Amino acid sequence: MAIKLYDLAGAEDDHRFSPYCWRVKMALAHKGIAFETLPWRFTEKDRIAASGQGSVPVMEDNDRSLHDSWEIANYLDETYQDGPALFPNEEAKAATLFLKFWTERVLHPLLMRLILTDVHDGLHEKDKDYFRTSREKMLGTSLEAVCEDRETHLETLGKGLAPLRATLDAQPFLGGSSPSFADYIVFGAFQWARCSSATEVLVKDDSVKAWRQRLLEMHDGMAANAKRPAA
Amino acid sequence: MAIKLYDLAGAEDDHRFSPYCWRVKMALAHKGIAFETLPWRFTEKDRIAASGQGSVPVMEDNDRSLHDSWEIANYLDETYQDGPALFPNEEAKAATLFLKFWTERVLHPLLMRLILTDVHDGLHEKDKDYFRTSREKMLGTSLEAVCEDRETHLETLGKGLAPLRATLDAQPFLGGSSPSFADYIVFGAFQWARCSSATEVLVKDDSVKAWRQRLLEMHDGMAANAKRPAA
Repeated sequence: MAIKLYDLAGAEDDHRFSPYCWRVKMALAHKGIAFETLPWRFTEKDRIAASGQGSVPVMEDNDRSLHDSWEIANYLDETYQDGPALFPNEEAKAATLFLKFWTERVLHPLLMRLILTDVHDGLHEKDKDYFRTSREKMLGTSLEAVCEDRETHLETLGKGLAPLRATLDAQPFLGGSSPSFADYIVFGAFQWARCSSATEVLVKDDSVKAWRQRLLEMHDGMAANAKRPAA
Repeated sequence: MAIKLYDLAGAEDDHRFSPYCWRVKMALAHKGIAFETLPWRFTEKDRIAASGQGSVPVMEDNDRSLHDSWEIANYLDETYQDGPALFPNEEAKAATLFLKFWTERVLHPLLMRLILTDVHDGLHEKDKDYFRTSREKMLGTSLEAVCEDRETHLETLGKGLAPLRATLDAQPFLGGSSPSFADYIVFGAFQWARCSSATEVLVKDDSVKAWRQRLLEMHDGMAANAKRPAA
């Protein structure tokens, strides 16, 4: 039985933009593991209640239920040792943890200011109220206010990418000479932006953009072919 | 013949605060390699001219001259394979590069705003003009202006440490269960602040402060015993 992944979807079933789900989809493709995705919406908590989770990714592998993209990557390496590793070894995994938290605490907020209203607009009608209410409560302001002054946010993102740019000036992947889960963590953030918004967040032709392009084309262009809003 | 390290010094010969030199001193201690340091000032370019460098660390190992802390760490692992590794393997090294650039592009600037005038005040008289002129040209403003509004800079640093804090909440060292060069890179930045300024930059009792304390005490308290300005 193929692995099943509950994958956040928008108004259309094939519109998939969750950064954490993209990590897992890239990880499964990296390891050459067949999987199917099930479109899931924020308000369908009951469908994944058995996992004890209120959000995706939730992955089912036979009778195992997994959640949390980092834990799923660990599970995949342990369970499917034939495929290429996502974490080449324990030391590389430890050294990747900082990058994971940088992505979640720094990069996601920087991107959010550029795409949050677009994320909302692409959602299924039944999710829109939930999304707006929960996010505005968390942020203490409206979605629209967060996204005001786009030019400033683009410039702030450009500066915030400095350590990523310097790393990718020096080596082709965050994992080194070939991609590892480190790459998919950061790529997930950019794919969230790309699949949520028609506008480009990477405005410079730099090593970050070239690296994203390599990842978009990987695994038969799985990420490049993903649905995104029309410009 | 013991390894010699040209080490940036202040007014007093034993006042050593360079973040990049601290990386190397911790690295040498980590590997259990004996070394001696030679106090060096910014304006003593002629003393390290043979290295082709205008700044330290410059390390001499018999007839080899090395510079750049990252390159020195690589050299030490290759040359002294008996001691504990600084980079456990190539994949861990690749995954550490992002942390190096984050330290240099994000953490150093955040700390600089808290300590730059103190760094200046601790310098040897013959270095002060050079330091002020070169830094003010680079920054486009005075040292004093950079350090204005200390409370805001402390708060910005506290927020900027979020990914570091989250990582050290999850594991005792950036290298994982034991320190690696990743730890010494980031520690060098905090030791730069600690040895330059009497005021504390880590104002919360969090995992970052606890981790710094572990590193201060390591290697017979080499870093803890370093000279710093009196409060």
